[in-house]
Amino acid sequence: MQFSSSLLESAVNEFTRLPGIGKKTALRLVLHLLKQDDQQVQQFSEVIARMRKEIRFCKRCYNVADGDFCSICANSYRQQHTICVVETIRDVIAIESTQQYNGTYHLLGGIISPLDGIGPDQLNIESLVQRIENEKTEELIFALNPNIQGDTTIYYIQKKLHDKPIRITTIARGIAFGGELEYADELTLGRSLQNRLPVEKYMNR
Amino acid sequence: MQFSSSLLESAVNEFTRLPGIGKKTALRLVLHLLKQDDQQVQQFSEVIARMRKEIRFCKRCYNVADGDFCSICANSYRQQHTICVVETIRDVIAIESTQQYNGTYHLLGGIISPLDGIGPDQLNIESLVQRIENEKTEELIFALNPNIQGDTTIYYIQKKLHDKPIRITTIARGIAFGGELEYADELTLGRSLQNRLPVEKYMNR
Repeated sequence: MQFSSSLLESAVNEFTRLPGIGKKTALRLVLHLLKQDDQQVQQFSEVIARMRKEIRFCKRCYNVADGDFCSICANSYRQQHTICVVETIRDVIAIESTQQYNGTYHLLGGIISPLDGIGPDQLNIESLVQRIENEKTEELIFALNPNIQGDTTIYYIQKKLHDKPIRITTIARGIAFGGELEYADELTLGRSLQNRLPVEKYMNR
Repeated sequence: MQFSSSLLESAVNEFTRLPGIGKKTALRLVLHLLKQDDQQVQQFSEVIARMRKEIRFCKRCYNVADGDFCSICANSYRQQHTICVVETIRDVIAIESTQQYNGTYHLLGGIISPLDGIGPDQLNIESLVQRIENEKTEELIFALNPNIQGDTTIYYIQKKLHDKPIRITTIARGIAFGGELEYADELTLGRSLQNRLPVEKYMNR
């Protein structure tokens, strides 16, 4: 692509660096910004720069935060003795949007995956163990993606906590709501048979 | 979506204002920026702001430019007596990437479309007529999208220039290269029959 302005070209190149944005999309976005009020574009630019510069990570759970602690850890209405262990911020947002959870989180920042060279030391596991000791945590809920790496991570953390008086659970795996039995994979269907629920309990949800 | 940080939330909201970018994509982009070096994100933000603030429109052809004139108008190797009339910057970029055109451009900034309330006065048509008079332009090539509005615009401009000694052409409409006859619409196929070319001329391209 040839541009008649180097300012335009460098703006397009900056957008192209974002994931999933090619040259054509980048050009469309830049031309859109060019049509906006000067003030709006300044705001766009400032908000992004400020976000990167001022955002903190919660000292307790490693979630993004405006100050030392995130709004979930700072909220005294939430059950501070329950910790939900997740991989990233995305998972926190997904769980929050269900409005079914009222405890706190702990972000591992990834998952144990020897093939990708990620071991326990690169993750926020040691701080989780420390936190459980200091805060007298009552329940730990694993909400990791259901795959080998997720299960390995659960196994590793659970072993580290074997002598602590804490209830450890994991979110249920099973047939998704609206899913069809015949298209489910064997592993999921098998597990969902093993972990079958009394119907009264299921209906009460 | 609920965020634990208002900085994150406002950054996501800014991205959501861009065309074709929803909440989930915006979050993905913002989390990507959050993982980048501080310096890279500052650069992203500065380049966008600078682009909006400093970009000019060429005084002659209304293309984007870094100074008073765009790089195409300022290039003395290009045929300054040929003008290609297009709608927007996008069309300039598309034609430039064919590397088949060595003249200058004139951006109308839109197309005559009474249904959308766009008449000749809102477009850069008067300045085109002035320019042709002042510059003793030899050829005017219309490269507008092939639809009713495009044809109306061609008709209007052509009538305004009826007493000027200038050659007026339009890019060829026809069956696209690689297209199939049976799927072409009647209008295109009909026109491409009317405007048939001697085979020698076609083969020489």
